[in-house]
Amino acid sequence: MQFHLNGFRPGDPSRAPEAVGQREADRVDVLIVGCGPTGLTLAASLAGFPEINTRIIERKSGPLEVGQADGIAVRSMEMFNAFGFAEEILREAYWVNETVFWKPDPERPERIVRANRIEDTEDGLSEFPHVILNQARVHDHYLDVMAKAPTRLTPDYDRRVVDLSVTPGSDHPVTVTLEHAAPGEDARTETVQARYVVGCDGARSAVRRSIGQALVGDSANQAWGVMDILAVTDFPDIRMKALVQSTNEGNLLVIPREGGYMVRLYIELDKLAEDERIAQKNLGVEDLIAAANRILHPYAIDVKDVAWWSVYEIGQRLARRFDDSDGTAPPHVFIAGDACHTHSPKAGQGMNVSMRDAFNLGWKLASVLTGRAVPEVLHTYSEERRGVAQTLIDFDRAFAAMFSAPPKTRDTDEGVDPAVLQSYFIQHGRFTAGTAIQYAPSILTGAPMHQDLASGFEIGKRFHSAPVIRLADARPMQLGHVVKADGRWRLFAFAGAGHPADPDASIRTLCTWLSGPGSPITLYTPDGADIDDAIDLRVVFRQDHRALALETMPDLLLPFKGRLGLRDYEKMFCPDPKAGDIFTLRGLAETGCMVLVRPDQHVAHVLALDAHQALSEFFSRFMIPQR
Amino acid sequence: MQFHLNGFRPGDPSRAPEAVGQREADRVDVLIVGCGPTGLTLAASLAGFPEINTRIIERKSGPLEVGQADGIAVRSMEMFNAFGFAEEILREAYWVNETVFWKPDPERPERIVRANRIEDTEDGLSEFPHVILNQARVHDHYLDVMAKAPTRLTPDYDRRVVDLSVTPGSDHPVTVTLEHAAPGEDARTETVQARYVVGCDGARSAVRRSIGQALVGDSANQAWGVMDILAVTDFPDIRMKALVQSTNEGNLLVIPREGGYMVRLYIELDKLAEDERIAQKNLGVEDLIAAANRILHPYAIDVKDVAWWSVYEIGQRLARRFDDSDGTAPPHVFIAGDACHTHSPKAGQGMNVSMRDAFNLGWKLASVLTGRAVPEVLHTYSEERRGVAQTLIDFDRAFAAMFSAPPKTRDTDEGVDPAVLQSYFIQHGRFTAGTAIQYAPSILTGAPMHQDLASGFEIGKRFHSAPVIRLADARPMQLGHVVKADGRWRLFAFAGAGHPADPDASIRTLCTWLSGPGSPITLYTPDGADIDDAIDLRVVFRQDHRALALETMPDLLLPFKGRLGLRDYEKMFCPDPKAGDIFTLRGLAETGCMVLVRPDQHVAHVLALDAHQALSEFFSRFMIPQR
Repeated sequence: MQFHLNGFRPGDPSRAPEAVGQREADRVDVLIVGCGPTGLTLAASLAGFPEINTRIIERKSGPLEVGQADGIAVRSMEMFNAFGFAEEILREAYWVNETVFWKPDPERPERIVRANRIEDTEDGLSEFPHVILNQARVHDHYLDVMAKAPTRLTPDYDRRVVDLSVTPGSDHPVTVTLEHAAPGEDARTETVQARYVVGCDGARSAVRRSIGQALVGDSANQAWGVMDILAVTDFPDIRMKALVQSTNEGNLLVIPREGGYMVRLYIELDKLAEDERIAQKNLGVEDLIAAANRILHPYAIDVKDVAWWSVYEIGQRLARRFDDSDGTAPPHVFIAGDACHTHSPKAGQGMNVSMRDAFNLGWKLASVLTGRAVPEVLHTYSEERRGVAQTLIDFDRAFAAMFSAPPKTRDTDEGVDPAVLQSYFIQHGRFTAGTAIQYAPSILTGAPMHQDLASGFEIGKRFHSAPVIRLADARPMQLGHVVKADGRWRLFAFAGAGHPADPDASIRTLCTWLSGPGSPITLYTPDGADIDDAIDLRVVFRQDHRALALETMPDLLLPFKGRLGLRDYEKMFCPDPKAGDIFTLRGLAETGCMVLVRPDQHVAHVLALDAHQALSEFFSRFMIPQR
Repeated sequence: MQFHLNGFRPGDPSRAPEAVGQREADRVDVLIVGCGPTGLTLAASLAGFPEINTRIIERKSGPLEVGQADGIAVRSMEMFNAFGFAEEILREAYWVNETVFWKPDPERPERIVRANRIEDTEDGLSEFPHVILNQARVHDHYLDVMAKAPTRLTPDYDRRVVDLSVTPGSDHPVTVTLEHAAPGEDARTETVQARYVVGCDGARSAVRRSIGQALVGDSANQAWGVMDILAVTDFPDIRMKALVQSTNEGNLLVIPREGGYMVRLYIELDKLAEDERIAQKNLGVEDLIAAANRILHPYAIDVKDVAWWSVYEIGQRLARRFDDSDGTAPPHVFIAGDACHTHSPKAGQGMNVSMRDAFNLGWKLASVLTGRAVPEVLHTYSEERRGVAQTLIDFDRAFAAMFSAPPKTRDTDEGVDPAVLQSYFIQHGRFTAGTAIQYAPSILTGAPMHQDLASGFEIGKRFHSAPVIRLADARPMQLGHVVKADGRWRLFAFAGAGHPADPDASIRTLCTWLSGPGSPITLYTPDGADIDDAIDLRVVFRQDHRALALETMPDLLLPFKGRLGLRDYEKMFCPDPKAGDIFTLRGLAETGCMVLVRPDQHVAHVLALDAHQALSEFFSRFMIPQR
């Protein structure tokens, strides 16, 4: 964390000074509809920009207390870290360390036996574990980020969208009519003019309907139950993530919960008839408990307290587009999260993919609204995130079908071999971890012409952090943790084999060029702003940190910043030999390279250290010169 | 973190349910005088006990905003972890990774040159780093712990002690007269009756005076300056802890501060004449800046902003006793922190040793007040902590003298060889880290008869954490992190070489005995309380966690707890081969052993696994049977 740049300020440094100025409630830059994890991720992404007037509304009367979603993929942990609350989540959450598979006992098929156990997340996939935590606690942290941001952004509760229309060409082209109905008060109507509206309002999204989109897909006619319980059981793996397949009683998934006592069970219930709805089955929590006991036989589970339960049908549905654009004019209305894709909860993807929809959109809106990027970048939101949602739905459909099938036994040819289910699960570990998502080349993502310079930083995928030591203070840390959710681009320059003190070292040449007129840093940094305001250059040298002399480095790597012109000492890094050499871990070429990272942590480009022109051209596609 | 034991409860799990019942302000169990780090550590230690009526008062009108103390030793980080806020400190603080030594250039003695650099904390000394953070932020975290505890303890500001007297034999033997003077209000007097009073009221302690104690010691007649500044400099190690010795201009210590920009400089000023006070010198911050520039030559430091500065004399002073006892009757008034020992700030020990005074006393007061331990345990506070303070003062005197001496050069025999200063610094690393503190045998600390069973868990020293994997959920973690600041004892049983499923495995025998009548667990656990309420048994097996079957373990290791009778799955651990085998790291004998840990994390005893009688006898010295 960096703070006190403009003078010592007592108190919590994560609480930014409040921005001055009144914000109009009826004329906003961005109106976010819905305070779920999607809406809150977006609000937290925008709350740091005092020049953007953001408003977020919610139908409910206050913050969520008990949420349905609970799985937090490692990729989401990385994102939380960029927002500054990964540590708190780690402390409070259940960590999914291993996954255990149970199957029918081949000798006595009416009983289940443990078949296998595997690491849940492969070693080195991320510096964060896969964890489980009540969605409401994630909301709390986002609300805290918003409240501490310069805009002191807080949701407006008890409000729902009743109408939305777009008037192209206007400065604030979206007109939204809200109904404001606090409990015990008469409903009132208010009208909001917005530059952009984002519907994070769930599967029954009013914003989606208003732009003529629908969720398209089907249902698998399979009923499932889910319950968060406090229980006593002799099933030994109740504190492990466990996939249980029984011969005739269906399947079950055990997800231990935070706090050491609570557990979530996903339980296969009956097949639904064609056109039958789950509500018609009149299922109660006692039906879930009975089914769980049948599946877990010979083990029993004695439920002492039910924190929450639900029954649902599996269905995968997707909107055709995630915005209101006709494909040419830039969009003004977006949908994100459950408003544009729904699926089964078992792979733990819903909340994760939805939050990352918002993380993808947030910085793009901020860049356009602050006049740094052209509105055309907004097209990439639907392009990128609809692709992710489609992949998720394909995965979910296959996984859910496999999960609902009976286990194949010696006597039948039908069903799924437990070994095949396991193998599918393992293969898709990177997908469910969220680290396999790769954006296709676009104006924001370069073509992989020079991917071989950095094979471990795949263009389009998230920047895969690795350990380093900070040169100025010898601090061991994760390089990826310099990427904060602040809307800035990061340019990581990995040095070539020579010594950086050599006058013609390629890093020196790069710094000279970047400091000069016409370079992207010069071009896109507004007058009076710090040199790293738009593009934050970080350099990683090959030498041991004790072998390098800070005082010989180019000024660009020790830039003067802020009101007092203080030097920023946090731009240079070296490998951390105790933790693993980043150059080896990420397959970096002997010649060094540049790795350009988007504000949402995805790798935008990999280029040679001297590819100055190519870097300029890349930015010129969408960035607006500030001088 | 464990929570939801008695049913699901939404919200922040670190916020305990509020205890019912009114607390009298004028008749309390413990009155803490002073809201510095010492008083707050004590208040946080007691706030978790709803049955104890604690009050904490402070002269000032509100929480501290800028503190003088800043160094947080690794031992204090371990303590913060027991209070639950180590992660926040780690995120915000500067990490002291290396220490750099500068000395006069042998060729050109008027210039300084870098002499050496070393790791600040030796590898493996603790799982936490040595960090630097404004004391006010430590206060904030303690206040947060207190506010979230069942007692919702908050300080009463604007109050000072004007009189204190003890009436032996009374139920509330201490009578304290307070002056309550809020700004702009007339001063009022209030009288508080207390069972115990703890003076954490600083070097001019009114509580100390009231029990007839004085600080005894001397001054080194050496003036020093200290300043927290935002500055621009070409001194390359401004983000490193750096000890700088100049030939004729004195010495200087660089302590980088949190946030990446601020730095603290300790600067040697003039020698004081006999009986001269520093105030007579009329030193200003410009004198400090000028001296720093002279010492750092040929480097220069351009100060842009001064956050705080002070000048002081070095002196080491110590009270004869830390309580009001005559050595026989148990004490009722204690002094802690600066109230009983003062020293120079440069070794970064003041706040650390003071907080640990309170950590030592807190659980003892709680044990006596809740009727679990005999009042005689309170004698150990002064015994243990005065010894620590004496050691600190001896160290500080030697280090300060060495630090104030000129560097020895080729031409002189006087002064201190920079290599000797370095070597002293390195040798005392464990002392300044706080991990070398060892309490002598007493009713609370066993004699080292069986130390060879666990050479890495030294009796009297703090429990040195090591990595393990929790059996039930395969979570990699630090074993020491199960020790929370909750007043409970921990009994770590390290298994012998056999398999725990063997009917005569020594762990099974131990569990059978501990479950039976007359065992310490049975004897000291109050009726209706959880089995781990007084003594929390944790077992570490030798086998890989995948080789052990949870379902074969004794019930005592999967105890039923709480209102609902839920099982606690967090009592069993295995080595973590990726992180290092705890049995090897801590020198544990083949036969296994018991390591008994006090509520303040110090090792009370090491015993053989079958030393049942010895364990019983140990507890019987001071614990009161509950049934």
